[in-house]
Parts: sequence; C-alpha cells; structure tokens
Amino acid sequence: MATVITGIGELTTNDPETGKLNDAALVIEDGKIVWAGPNAQAPAADERVDVEGRAVLPGWVDSHTHLVFAGDRTAEFEARMAGKPYQAGGIAVTVGATRAASDAELTANLRRHVDEAVRQGTTCLETKTGYGLSVVDEARSARIAASIVDEVTFLGAHLVPPGAGAESYVDLVCGEMLDAVVDDVRWADVFCETGAFDEDQSERVLLAARDRGLGLRVHGNQLGEGPGVRIAVELGAASVDHCTYLSDDDVEALAASETVATVLPACDLSTRQPLAPARRLLDAGATVALASNANPGSSYTTSMAFCVATAVLQMRMTVEEAVWSATAGGARALRRNDVGALRVGARADVHVLDAPSVTHLAYRPGVPLTWAVWRCGERVF
Amino acid sequence: MATVITGIGELTTNDPETGKLNDAALVIEDGKIVWAGPNAQAPAADERVDVEGRAVLPGWVDSHTHLVFAGDRTAEFEARMAGKPYQAGGIAVTVGATRAASDAELTANLRRHVDEAVRQGTTCLETKTGYGLSVVDEARSARIAASIVDEVTFLGAHLVPPGAGAESYVDLVCGEMLDAVVDDVRWADVFCETGAFDEDQSERVLLAARDRGLGLRVHGNQLGEGPGVRIAVELGAASVDHCTYLSDDDVEALAASETVATVLPACDLSTRQPLAPARRLLDAGATVALASNANPGSSYTTSMAFCVATAVLQMRMTVEEAVWSATAGGARALRRNDVGALRVGARADVHVLDAPSVTHLAYRPGVPLTWAVWRCGERVF
Repeated sequence: MATVITGIGELTTNDPETGKLNDAALVIEDGKIVWAGPNAQAPAADERVDVEGRAVLPGWVDSHTHLVFAGDRTAEFEARMAGKPYQAGGIAVTVGATRAASDAELTANLRRHVDEAVRQGTTCLETKTGYGLSVVDEARSARIAASIVDEVTFLGAHLVPPGAGAESYVDLVCGEMLDAVVDDVRWADVFCETGAFDEDQSERVLLAARDRGLGLRVHGNQLGEGPGVRIAVELGAASVDHCTYLSDDDVEALAASETVATVLPACDLSTRQPLAPARRLLDAGATVALASNANPGSSYTTSMAFCVATAVLQMRMTVEEAVWSATAGGARALRRNDVGALRVGARADVHVLDAPSVTHLAYRPGVPLTWAVWRCGERVF
Repeated sequence: MATVITGIGELTTNDPETGKLNDAALVIEDGKIVWAGPNAQAPAADERVDVEGRAVLPGWVDSHTHLVFAGDRTAEFEARMAGKPYQAGGIAVTVGATRAASDAELTANLRRHVDEAVRQGTTCLETKTGYGLSVVDEARSARIAASIVDEVTFLGAHLVPPGAGAESYVDLVCGEMLDAVVDDVRWADVFCETGAFDEDQSERVLLAARDRGLGLRVHGNQLGEGPGVRIAVELGAASVDHCTYLSDDDVEALAASETVATVLPACDLSTRQPLAPARRLLDAGATVALASNANPGSSYTTSMAFCVATAVLQMRMTVEEAVWSATAGGARALRRNDVGALRVGARADVHVLDAPSVTHLAYRPGVPLTWAVWRCGERVF
C-alpha cells in the first residue's frame, strides 16, 4: 500500500540534491520513501493524507540515550537544583534499582520511554546498557534493548561498580562481559573521564570491542578537558559524546576526522555545566549531532525539540543546523544512511509539525508541535 | 454535579495552611473546589476520576501575553537567531497585519492560542491590546480579548505608531483611546523604556488610567535599567514585567512593595538578553511571577512549563518557587484570590501532570506532561 502525504508547506529533506521544498508532497511505500517532489505533481496512491501546509522533516535520530533502567532519582535532581549537596549515589542508585528489577519491569520502562519519544517525533533511537555492570545484568540489559530499539550500545565501562577494582573490572568488561553482550549490540562505549575510566583503561575497552567487530563510541570531555576526544578520533569512533570542554586541539582533531561530535544540551543544563561549544565545532568544520542523553540522572528528557530549541536560542546554532544535527547528524553518529533524510530509498520516518516551518521548533519553545509521525512507513502518532 | 479526583500522588495546593499533600483527593462542585484532603477520606461524588498517583497542581496563571494579533514574524526570529540584521520593523509589522485583519481572523487567532495554552495547563490568562495603536483598532482588540480571556489589559502605550508624534499620541492614549476601551479592560499598561515611552509619558498614561478606575501594570527594565520599576511601585501597579535589568534600589523597592516582579524567561532567551534576576528578587523578599509573554515577536510560546523549567535550570529558582510563581504568583500579579491555589472556595482550575511530582516539570524539560485540565470545574483537556 502506498500513502501520499500532500500539502506539505515546507519539506526538509536533508538531501543535498533536493534541499528544502515548499508546497511539496511525499510518497511512502513498503516502509520507504519512494517519491518526493512538488505538490502539484504528486502521484496518486492508495491513501492520501493532506497536512494542510504543515512542515515535514525527517523523524529525530536520537543517537544517545540510557533507557534500560529502573528506579527514581527525582530527589537527587531536586537537591542539585536547590544547590544542596546530595550524597546518595548517582549512577550507583540506578544500578541497584536496575539489577533488582525484573525483565518485565525493565522492558516496560524502556518501552514507555521509547513510546514517549515517538510521540514527540523520534523515529530512530540508540540506547545503552551501563546500569547493570555485571556480566549477567549487562547481558540482560543488552538483550532487552535489542528487542525494542534500533541501535544498542554496550556501556559496561560506565563506572567501576562499588566494591570492584578498576583494573580487574576493565578485564571483566574486555573479556567475559563483552562476550556476553556481543550478539545483541552494534556499538561499544566508554566513559573516559576523571572518576570513571582513564586513558589506558578506555583504550583497552575500545580495542577489545573493535576486535569483536563492534563500532566505537566514547563519552568524553563532559566534566573537563581530557583524552576522550583524542582517543575517539585516533580509534575511529563514530562519535564522541558530551564535548562540553574542548581544547583547540580537540576541535581541530574532530574537524579533520569522521568522528561526530555529539552535543547533549539538556544534560549540560540539567547538570549546570556550560553548554557545549557547538558553534566553535561547526565553524571549525566538525560534524555535530544533537541528542537527548535521556537518562534518569543527568538528563531525564526525551524531547529532541527541547534540544533543538536550546541549540538555537543558547548555542548559536542556526535552525537549519540544529534540525540537521538532530536528524542527519544523529544518523551520521550512528553511521546510517537509511535514516535522517527524506530521499527516495530512505526509511519512511516522517515527522509532521503543527507549524508552517521548522523554525517554529525554536520560535515556540516548549509548545508540543508534533502533529503526526510515521516510522518505517507506519503511522505511529 | 460533583466530581471527585482521587489517587493524587502529590497535591500542590498553594494554600499555606494545607501545603503539599501526598496521597490526596479533591472534590469539584459548581466550578469550585469544595473539598481537599487525604485520599482515604475522599467523599463520594457523582463522578470519580482516579489519576493513579499523578501530580496535581493549580492551572497555570499566565499573567502576561499579547495574543490579539495577526501576521507572521518567523523570518525576523530566524534572522535574529542567525545573528543577522533584520530591518523589517518588529512590532510595527504586527500592527499593520493586526489592523488589516478582520474581527473573525483576530478572534480565531486568539482562540487558537488560548486553546493551545489550555492544552498545556493554562487556566487563567491575561492578554493585552497594543497591536492596534489607533482608537478604533485598540477598541476592537479590547472587545475581542474581553470576549475570550479572563483578564484584559489596555496597552495603547506599546509604541508610538509610525507617523505619530510621541506627545500627541500620549494625549490620544490618555483621552479618546482610554475612553474607547475602558469598558472592556481591567488593566492599563505602558512600555516604559528608551525607544518607547519615557518616565513622564509613562506616568501620564498610568495616572489617566487610574483615574478611570483601571488597575496598573508596567513593562519596564527590559532592555536596560530605567525608571519602570520605580514608577510601578510609586503608583501601586499590580505588576512590573520583564525586570531583566534591575538596580539595587529597584530590588529594594519591589521587596518593600505590593508590586509583583513578573519575569519572562522565554522572552529573555528569545531576544538573547540575560535571564531576569529572579533569585536576587526572591532573596530580597520580592514577590515573583513567571509568565510566558506569548507574542509573535519576542516570545512566541504559550508554554508555562518551559518557563518553569528555565526558571529552575537556569535562574536558580527552586521547583517549589517556580511552580508557585507560575500559579499563585500570576494570581498575585493579577490581584486575584480565586485562582492560583487549590483550596476550598477557589475556582476549580486543576492541572494533572503525567508525572508523580511537579519536580518533573524541570527534571523532564520539553516533555509534554499535561495529562488533564479542568477550568472552572469543567474538563477542558
């Protein structure tokens, strides 16, 4: 069955050959885009949906989330915002709750958050393990994630779990744990930061994962300058995420590489860090992705629209740059060609806004603008 | 008919005697709250709605909007965000389009934006004239606003219209224009700022309005320090709005007065101004309201949740302070006792969040959390 979406006031294709079209139409068939062009030339189809002048763009590609979790950290957030110290344990709290949860609870929680993201226009989502931190719990997290989301990343190296030694834990991550998750994940990631994993440990994890055929991602430069970006670029990681504190060398290295700089503005705001220097990265020629970092600790939002609005209002990205980074940029960070663009042959992930242009995403911050969503050609909202 | 709302996980009453209740219930009858207390003691009623642990708070009181308008300023916003100069005329663009629009267009546009606000939990809304700037157009704007919203403010003194002289325009505002609107408005406002109306002109407008029995509001201290706050306090205005640039004397004057300081964070962000010093105002003892300033130029959002999230994440208001300022604070700025609190006798304006606590408004920025809304006892979302 083919569906034609007509009356598109503004169509953001992210296809360099097509660019942005006004007064356009799209045809979806068998889960793919099969035609895009002027509204007046739209072919007939089995089903016709007139969006009456609304803006259409590719569904969000959220390339960084941590949604296999249980438990609650509202009180920690509230204390942080009030400037009060909060001793109770951060990530370790979520690890405890996640380990204690049943498969059904973890699955339901993940599905609830993914559904929430879909209702806001997210059609391709990466999520990570990293709240298990034992062989059995990481394997379970990977399996549950793989049953629901597009892209799964192994983040056994999120934190050294309480009671473990760093070196022996890295041995475990690089050996038995990696073996236990490898069939369910496409990516491996490491939190390369003071207090998490140092340069040598991070490299060991990434090299072990690369040996198993996994693609690489790095959490780096979140809390201060450090080796994260350099390692990511040297090892050919698809993305280095956070990038809040960057040296000039880091920026140059990113600009000269295929490694995407993924910025996470909702996390920066929620942890009262400076916003990542997206403008500096773009001006240097680096590829920037925007993602939510949805997780219960440092960034509990699934709203890519909020990230886009923040990028435009406060990080000096243009609307066009921010929308590209939250769609095609995310796809680049996941090394995918089938999502993040609305060109013939791409996956039919279509986001219709209740607004005449994508500019309204930043012009109208906080207003829920998602009007309709197709994912793999199926209307899901 | 009485409705009982049961299973309230967290009830924010804004009633100093009751405070915040967990595991609570509310009863609505004849448009008013008639009972609030522990869930286990909830009386029977004709209708029962179980909110299953969700948070309930008073509907937002948005005490500052400019929603009687026509026309589009998307390009101006986009250019401003891109750091490009944009010559085409700001407020005057909206004035031209508003004058050219039919009554039906203006009414439909206002209703559409009010409905959008209601779906996001706003149950009491102030709006202003100020895009007419002629006797006939201001009178028309006031009449249309009065047919739809709770509170209408006359803002003939928004800007000296192109072609007019400042002094003769102030004469018009204080005379014929005020006479033409006075039956449809409760408030008068003036934009006291370099480039708009100076101290003497602002005082003339406010005194003329006070003589006609109108309450006073002031736009002040938006673009720099100036006399706005002082005038507002001296003349007993209910609110002075923007307050982005305040001297120590301004803060002290506000703290010692009944005049509410209304901060407009979405406007500050959208115009790349610093965020208003809400923390400083609160620490000094001033009363702070949060409002959207919804208008097509400087702040085109109806999202009070975005304002609350920004206040907490970036202005160092606590969640409790931000929620109070966006509900009871707005009511204080409008000198109303019947809205902004959920106590017996208050208007049944009830906002149910799809979250267990109001903290999630800041913890989950951008995620649409409005789950149900009652306004004057009627379920409107």
